[in-house]
Amino acid sequence: MQTSAPIRQIRLHAFEMACVGHIQQGMWRHPRDRATGYTRLDHWVALARTLERGLFDGLFLADVLGVYDVYGASPDAALRAGVQVPNLDPALLVPAMAHATRNLGFAITANAAATHPFVFARQMSTLDHLTGGRIGWNVVTGYLDSAARALGRDGQADHDSRYDAADQVMDALGRLWRESWQDGAVTADRDTGVYTDPARVHAVIGAGQGWRTDAIHLCEPSPQRGPVIYQAGASARGLRFAADHAECVFVNATTPAQTAGLVAALREAAGARRVQVFAGMTVVAGRTPAEAADRYADYERYADPEAAMVQSAGSMGVDFAVLAEDEAIRMVPTQAVVSNLAALTAGPAVTKRGWRERLRLGGRQVPVVGSPAQVADAMQDWMAQADLDGFVLARTVTPECFVDFVDLVVPELQRRGVYKTAYADGTLREKLFDRK
Amino acid sequence: MQTSAPIRQIRLHAFEMACVGHIQQGMWRHPRDRATGYTRLDHWVALARTLERGLFDGLFLADVLGVYDVYGASPDAALRAGVQVPNLDPALLVPAMAHATRNLGFAITANAAATHPFVFARQMSTLDHLTGGRIGWNVVTGYLDSAARALGRDGQADHDSRYDAADQVMDALGRLWRESWQDGAVTADRDTGVYTDPARVHAVIGAGQGWRTDAIHLCEPSPQRGPVIYQAGASARGLRFAADHAECVFVNATTPAQTAGLVAALREAAGARRVQVFAGMTVVAGRTPAEAADRYADYERYADPEAAMVQSAGSMGVDFAVLAEDEAIRMVPTQAVVSNLAALTAGPAVTKRGWRERLRLGGRQVPVVGSPAQVADAMQDWMAQADLDGFVLARTVTPECFVDFVDLVVPELQRRGVYKTAYADGTLREKLFDRK
Repeated sequence: MQTSAPIRQIRLHAFEMACVGHIQQGMWRHPRDRATGYTRLDHWVALARTLERGLFDGLFLADVLGVYDVYGASPDAALRAGVQVPNLDPALLVPAMAHATRNLGFAITANAAATHPFVFARQMSTLDHLTGGRIGWNVVTGYLDSAARALGRDGQADHDSRYDAADQVMDALGRLWRESWQDGAVTADRDTGVYTDPARVHAVIGAGQGWRTDAIHLCEPSPQRGPVIYQAGASARGLRFAADHAECVFVNATTPAQTAGLVAALREAAGARRVQVFAGMTVVAGRTPAEAADRYADYERYADPEAAMVQSAGSMGVDFAVLAEDEAIRMVPTQAVVSNLAALTAGPAVTKRGWRERLRLGGRQVPVVGSPAQVADAMQDWMAQADLDGFVLARTVTPECFVDFVDLVVPELQRRGVYKTAYADGTLREKLFDRK
Repeated sequence: MQTSAPIRQIRLHAFEMACVGHIQQGMWRHPRDRATGYTRLDHWVALARTLERGLFDGLFLADVLGVYDVYGASPDAALRAGVQVPNLDPALLVPAMAHATRNLGFAITANAAATHPFVFARQMSTLDHLTGGRIGWNVVTGYLDSAARALGRDGQADHDSRYDAADQVMDALGRLWRESWQDGAVTADRDTGVYTDPARVHAVIGAGQGWRTDAIHLCEPSPQRGPVIYQAGASARGLRFAADHAECVFVNATTPAQTAGLVAALREAAGARRVQVFAGMTVVAGRTPAEAADRYADYERYADPEAAMVQSAGSMGVDFAVLAEDEAIRMVPTQAVVSNLAALTAGPAVTKRGWRERLRLGGRQVPVVGSPAQVADAMQDWMAQADLDGFVLARTVTPECFVDFVDLVVPELQRRGVYKTAYADGTLREKLFDRK
């Protein structure tokens, strides 16, 4: 059979976080799970090698700067179950993984308001240099009040003004990365002793909420100059921010149809600008449907849906601890959680009991469980229905979930001609956008 | 011959910075110099392996957050000669080097005022986890006006108040690192599903100049809990700060006698608290005195004393560009550079010409040039005269300067019984203080 258009290639990121419980809560209790090794470099280097063996485009590292303390109005439940706390700074995981790989990209999450833009610009340029042009930045504006208090604010600013502030940061960062050092500024001429031509280096003057700067960027131009910009906001304001800045967008929705609406709105807002869109997905694969079902049943015994409620409480701003089992989840849209609530309210009213049932593997993502062919079918279905460029795969029992995916599903995708058989040359941006 | 006391062991750090021109300016032009590889991880991993082969205690990474723009009232001369600009964030070099080594320590320089303490606390705890307890922090308060402007201030605060501000930061950091998570807080019990006992985790409330925090520390206790604290200030206020906080002090002075005064003052101020003191030193070693002299002559041909003046101008607050050759260096003590000027003014008046002559290898440190025996003699002489614990060795032509030191001088020091033949067990702090 001939198709009129080339078959769309699936791009993959792994979704990880330097903590015990990331997306599917409770999995760390599984005897084969190694998430508690998150403080060791070996743990991360092994993961990076597995992902590169599977030709993943990137490792997407989540982050929060606070704790989930909406559930029971206390951080106790999050601490007890290890829900994204304790955690580590994701930027510092990258260099060791980059040294052990050649092609894998690294998209790290960082709050645009937590570090002075002049300092942050150097951190990202440093990572872009050290990775040889394989760094991405998932821009977040923060949504936890606990993070705001940690940073000395009385609470989060309202949702839209956080994005306004992020626009100002993006402007200064863009100029530090792209305008402070012109092409050709670095001559590195051993004979004349001139390393840099000062006529081609320019100060950047900028200001935003709580910061000012007047400085040349400290780093010479890195391979990509600036990181590939990732974004995950699904609110109207988040969508506009993504349309203005993002090169890659990470969407989280329950069904392909629901995702299709988000993606269409995003692509329309971006206009002529090409944006890669990836959907969050949890996969439990086995060699056969029966093996996958067994594996899923095994995993589910260790899931901690109550811990997942703790995470939902933080991300949606709903204190599940005080709701009765059959009480409908109160839609109290706060400025902090517009997009998360919107995703939930898109369907019919949900009770606390109903929500917990949805979280039965320990997280909001309903897993795709199946043989390589079944998983590949599901992925191709999502791609086609929702006009996607690929997926961000959450961990279940780690690292075996990624090892299984690479060993079982990747070859099936390759057989179908929807997945690369070798990395392209070039930087992360060049690889993602076929520019080299 | 029997000595009444055990022979004092020499401890060594290498002094490096992620830039082209660090301490001895111009060396990057030498055909064998590889400093321009500072943006590549391989460059740093190879260095770390060399240092570990030589049983160095640590790699001391310098940093500045601004540019040297006092000379000619412009950053142009610093840019042209590559004087500590462009540069990279030193913290991000550590993870790859840590993964390639097992015992080498890493002391990174960071300005206590450039990053919010809550965020900085996590960065350092992350590094302490990832290195398995091998991280140190060289606390600086900044002295370049260009750095202050980059961070949105009108200029540097006065010298002593910068240390007052740093005291407040140290207090909050100490509580985040040592009090937020009690021993035993992490249970990681797979059977009960309890990762952390919330009763043993406590919020830290603190405030200082321009920041507040109210948060639990995000990281579980790391091997050392907090980094080994290094400090290099030599002013009266800097000395008090060191006496209060520092575990290791890095002194820079011209002669053993001058150093002895500083060290005595420091040890007296620290009282019963044991502090390790290291002196800056530049070594050019050869197998014989003649070979060392040849090597020095070869290096000197590439030195850039004028670039060294650019660095001196920034660190001393004296614009050498406007001085006549035989004009005495004007002692205009600014709040920014108290200690640097003090070191200079300790001797007789110095002219611009005289100062340049001192900088003839491209930096202020007058190199020790000689055979392994001559270098070992000089080191033992400094140790005895100035009551030192060891040295911080600056680079000349890199990496060969460190390879030469490891191959030639280390065996000589070992033969004399003044240098370890194997690493001790334990964290950096335990190794430095013989605590394990």
